[in-house]
This record gives sequence, structure tokens and C-alpha cells, in this order.
Amino acid sequence: MNLPAGYRYAATYAGIRKDPRDDLALIVCDARASIAAVFTQNRVQAAPVKVAKAHLAKSQGTVRALLLNAGNANCATRTGDAVAESICEALAAQLGVPVDQIFPASTGVIGVELDGSLIAAKLPRLLAALSPHAFEDVARAIMTTDTRMKTASQTVEIEGRIVSIAGMTKGSGMIHPNMATTLGFILTDALIAPMQLRAMLSEAVARSYNRVSVDGDTSTNDTLAFIANGASGVLPAAADRQRFQQALDSVAENLAEQIVRDGEGARKLIRIEVAGAADEHAAVRIARAIANSPLFKTAIAGSDPNWGRILSAAGNAGVAFDPARVEIWMQDTAVCREGLAADFCEDELKRKLDDAVCTVRFVIQGPGRGQAHFLTCDLTEKYIEINASYRT
Amino acid sequence: MNLPAGYRYAATYAGIRKDPRDDLALIVCDARASIAAVFTQNRVQAAPVKVAKAHLAKSQGTVRALLLNAGNANCATRTGDAVAESICEALAAQLGVPVDQIFPASTGVIGVELDGSLIAAKLPRLLAALSPHAFEDVARAIMTTDTRMKTASQTVEIEGRIVSIAGMTKGSGMIHPNMATTLGFILTDALIAPMQLRAMLSEAVARSYNRVSVDGDTSTNDTLAFIANGASGVLPAAADRQRFQQALDSVAENLAEQIVRDGEGARKLIRIEVAGAADEHAAVRIARAIANSPLFKTAIAGSDPNWGRILSAAGNAGVAFDPARVEIWMQDTAVCREGLAADFCEDELKRKLDDAVCTVRFVIQGPGRGQAHFLTCDLTEKYIEINASYRT
Repeated sequence: MNLPAGYRYAATYAGIRKDPRDDLALIVCDARASIAAVFTQNRVQAAPVKVAKAHLAKSQGTVRALLLNAGNANCATRTGDAVAESICEALAAQLGVPVDQIFPASTGVIGVELDGSLIAAKLPRLLAALSPHAFEDVARAIMTTDTRMKTASQTVEIEGRIVSIAGMTKGSGMIHPNMATTLGFILTDALIAPMQLRAMLSEAVARSYNRVSVDGDTSTNDTLAFIANGASGVLPAAADRQRFQQALDSVAENLAEQIVRDGEGARKLIRIEVAGAADEHAAVRIARAIANSPLFKTAIAGSDPNWGRILSAAGNAGVAFDPARVEIWMQDTAVCREGLAADFCEDELKRKLDDAVCTVRFVIQGPGRGQAHFLTCDLTEKYIEINASYRT
Repeated sequence: MNLPAGYRYAATYAGIRKDPRDDLALIVCDARASIAAVFTQNRVQAAPVKVAKAHLAKSQGTVRALLLNAGNANCATRTGDAVAESICEALAAQLGVPVDQIFPASTGVIGVELDGSLIAAKLPRLLAALSPHAFEDVARAIMTTDTRMKTASQTVEIEGRIVSIAGMTKGSGMIHPNMATTLGFILTDALIAPMQLRAMLSEAVARSYNRVSVDGDTSTNDTLAFIANGASGVLPAAADRQRFQQALDSVAENLAEQIVRDGEGARKLIRIEVAGAADEHAAVRIARAIANSPLFKTAIAGSDPNWGRILSAAGNAGVAFDPARVEIWMQDTAVCREGLAADFCEDELKRKLDDAVCTVRFVIQGPGRGQAHFLTCDLTEKYIEINASYRT
């Protein structure tokens, strides 16, 4: 990991979840940093989402610390707003910064009151433990049903100096596009103004977090934040912006892909590529319709080259196309041409579909230039097992 | 079963599916009848859907026979249109009626050529076997992954005479609203003009077939037809229309409910009731969003009163509502009031959720009068098992 300069981290177990794994974490910027964030578009929003939005507005996109917890989403709770605000206030007082420079985020069960005193009690310990090396401790503390820690990093050389971007994320169910799905925090030591940061984050999210789906559900707490503290002293000039954006995109795509790979019960990563649609928007709709079809996802779980389900799922995307112009490829084998069964060896393809990564390519022959890719995972018995007993 | 007069039925095994269960069926009207139908809205439409639509238009909504097969959807097939048309022609010739009075429908696997000669070879036997008592043989022949035959009937007394309505349906996966999902055929001996029949069918479908969901997928072959042959000699007058419509609605609702009860892998029927939305359309959207949430459906499979998932799923419906005004009831137990956890005994409710029928009531307090109900089923390991190996 290439960690950016000027950040310190700490995590601890505060007793929010029963399982005694770390469930409380802190990221502190040594100096005031710029921050941009995207949030869930669910009509029901957790208290920390509401508080984070308010703080972002009041601080005009600046931040000193992120206060994170797992084990309780602090959503649909009687005391939620007050608890979220009061733990931010407690931290702000101890750090000696305005409360609106604290950015909160929570993940976990909905509808259970969050005991703020559990968090307040641990703040002194967290502050004392802050270290520039504990990035991964924070990444582990925000995990819920995740089976793996998810981090990614990139460096960019700008005018002979190194700028770092490092991200962490969590989430393996309730993952769906249309906003920052799940929790994610991407940190850089480049110097970037809040407005510029927002534009960069939007671009990065559009083709990463908004192009993955596990189960089509969208959480009440989804938050993805991008923080730039300027500790490298490097302000990317216009000429360097594209390389910086590419590095950011790469981190975001890497994190989003890790979420799908760790999808609840998933055994396979499925990559869906659509080409030949009227435009990118139409291509995304087709790709998403395929990615969200339970019948398709279970077929992949069974290594069944059932391209009829792919064609049928695409037909439900609400996008006009001529089925007779459709070609479908699975694992680089043509399974459908001109909307009809292609000649292929089913046994051989079934074996190829046992791979950990399955690629489906859906091509509409003709003048359309719209293309998109989308990531999802197979739907297995294990998903049911995990979700039939999450609370208990 | 109260079967309407003037229809005869036959079914046989034609070798379309490997499993030697009946896979070919015929319904013949003794005289020319009125017919209305609704079809899948999938962009990819099977050959029999295209042929049935063309025949419906040419015959101006009249029909003499329905030719049905299971085991092969005749969709995405090179010879599909010609096969569907030629088997209709063969039947029309043997019945001595115009080809556009034959209504075809198919269900089964997609993308495999349908051998029309298998069907043509069996037509003489089917015609010879026609009987007014073989209604259930046809209902069984159209089954695919269904575990149970699905039929329903009603009678209405009009001016001292009895009019009968009898329906059959099939389907247990790929069930989703927005059109006649799956195959369904509803027959009556009332005398009704095609245009009137269409209006009646639309009304019946809106609150039955369009209000159920198994997995959110929509097939390429979905077809629901309503046939009126006038054999009772009764023409429902304007004053009797409402009672007749109610009987038709009841048959359609009964059939649609049977599909959900037989949902692939389903152990429980879930009834979702929404009230207090701005209008019926908004209520349907909320109900559908809950019904299609895999997280909610797996929670019910596990008898987990996880109302947070219900609130979160509703928040994704794209409908404006204030979460603080939401009440949620499960099995007549209030689990959420004013958007917050209500006080209830979790162990007791878990036991109640072990029932075969689970009811969720989502109420928005306030002036809204929009309400709707929706049926779905739980999502179990068995769904995965069935669909990971359907073709093989």
C-alpha cells in the first residue's frame, strides 16, 4: 500500500456489535482537508448520512476527521440524529476543531438504537492510538458480512513528486448502483479544492461503484467520501489532472470490484460487457438488467451456458433493440448469433464457466456505438443462508 | 370445477420434452368464440407470441382453437416463426377453419429449435381424443417447473341462467408483473364481443397477474388469453357486467396467487399491503419494491422480523414518503411506528412468521388514500437449486 502523507488512523472494539471485533474507527487529517462525498439515494436515510450531509454543507467541503462504526447503522432510530451529532461534538471538542469538520458514517443493523456512550467512552483511547500505519485496522473495523478487507492504492508522479491515493471500502450485500453503494473512503495527499474534488469523485463513481450490483438492494447508509489533504504539497495542474483522475478511477474500480468479488455467497465474479447499443446509457441499462436477473445469476452459479436467460433479461431492460442482431459470448465462446443458438460445445463451455471469473459479452450488430461494462456475482445458496439469519 | 359449455380438450405426449409427461395440448371451441389476450412486454418475443398477435389481429379477436406446448418456448429459434405458423396451418386444415382462428402458445427452454413434425404427427390423435372433461389434462400438460396443476372457476347467475368461467395457468419462476406473466387461459360460455372482452381482461389482469412477483424476471412467452364462446346463450347486460367482472377477477386472482404459492423453491406466500400512499400507482410501486427485494424475501425465509429491510426496500421505490410517518405490521404485529422500532416480542413474532402465509402491512400515516396489495414468495436455497440446473 502507498499511503498518502498526513493521515493517522485508529480502530478499537467499542461493544457496538456482539462479536468482539473492532467496530469503531477514526481517520484524522493532520491539517484541514477538502472532502467530497456521494450518498445513498434511498428515501430512508440513516442519521449519520443526514449529519454528514449537513456538516459537508456547513464546512463548505472541509474535514478534519472521519468517525466510523460498524455493527449498527443508526437508521430508523429514535435517538439517531442526536447520537450522531453528539459523538461528532465529543470528537470535535477533543480534537479542538469545529463539529462540522467531523464526518460520520455507520453500517450495520437498522432500527436498533445506537448507544452513543459506547463510542464517546472510546474516543480518548482512539485518539491516543492514532498512527499513520493503522490504515488497514480501520479497513477491517468497518467490515460487516465482508469476508475480506478491501483496500487499493495508486501513486502518480507529478512534477517529479509522488502523490498517493489510497482507498478502503466495505460491503458485500445490499449492493446496487445509483449512488455510492456501501461505505468507501478514498484519501489522497494531493492539494485539491472541494469543488474540483466533487467533479473528480463523480467521474470516478460513475464507472466504478455505479456499475456494480450484488443483489439489487440499496442501503440506507451508503456513503463514499474522497478526501484531499494537500500534505504532498502537490497541486495537480490542468495538464496532470487526467493522469490523476485515471489513478483515482483505478482505485475506485478496484474497490468496487472487490465488493462484488466478496458479494454475499458469491463464488464467481461476472463481468458483463455490452456493445452496439444506441448510446452508453442504453448499454448500461441492458448490462444492469442482465446483472440483476436472478435467473441469469443462478445459471452462472450452476455453470449453465443458458444464453436464453441473458437474451430474455436484456429484453426486459426497457431499451429498444432488434433481437435478430444480437450476438452473445460467454467466456469468449459465441453462444448466440443473430439472436439464435450458435454452434458450440456445451460441455467444454460448462467447464470454462467453472472459472472464478465469467465474462458475458452482449453485442448488438449495427451502427450503435454505446458500450458499457458492469460487474455482478453469481447467486448461490450461501446468499440465502447469510441473509435468512443476519440479525440473529 | 364448473366448466363452461362448448369447449373440448385433449393432451398428449409428443416428445418435445425428454421427461415423458404430456407436453402438447389442445382446446377447441365448438363454435367461433371471442378472444382477448395480453402478452409479455419483453423486447424479445417468442415465435408463438408473434403468431398469436398476428392471428388475433387478422381474425378480429375470434378463435376456434388454442394449440399449446410445454418443453420448448420456440423463442430465439431459426425456424421458429415458420414452425409456429405451420402447426397452426395443419390444425386449421384438420378443423376446417381459417388459420388465423388458431391461437398458439409455448413454454419451456429458449434457443432450441422446436421440431414441428412432433406436433403435426400428434394432431389427429389430439383431435380424436377431444373431450369436454379433459380440462385438467390440458392444465397439467402446460406445466414446466410447476409442482402443482393450477385451475380456478366461478359461476355467475344471470337472468336465472348459469354462466361459467374456468381458468388454468402455469408458471413458477420468471414471474413478474407488467403483463400477463406466464401462460394462462380463462374460458367462459358467456356471449361477449371481442372489444368488451379486452376491457374485462385488462381490468382482471391489473389486480391479479400484474400484482405478483416471484423473482422479478419476465419471460419471452408470457401470454394470458380470455375466451368467450357464448355457448350459455347469456349476454351479460350492463346491469350484470359488474358481477361478471367480479367473478372473472376472482378467477384471475386465484390463478395468480397459485403461481406465487408454487414459486420456485417457495415455502411461504407473502402478502404485501400498502396504504396511505399518494395514489394507487405509488402504493403499487412501494409494494413491488418490497416484493422484489431479495434481502426481504430471504429474511422471510428465515422467519426474521427484519422490518429495517422492508423500510429500506420501500425507500428504493422511487416514491416520496416521510419515513417518520411509516408504520409496519408483520402478521398483525406492529414492528415499526413513526419509522422507529415498535415494542414487540421478537421470539413470538418469529414463530408467527413460520406460517405458510406472511402478511406485511406498510402504512403511511397521513392524508394519502392510495392503497394496493401485492403477492410474492420467500427466496430459499431451493430456488437456486432449481435454477442452477434447469437446462441440464
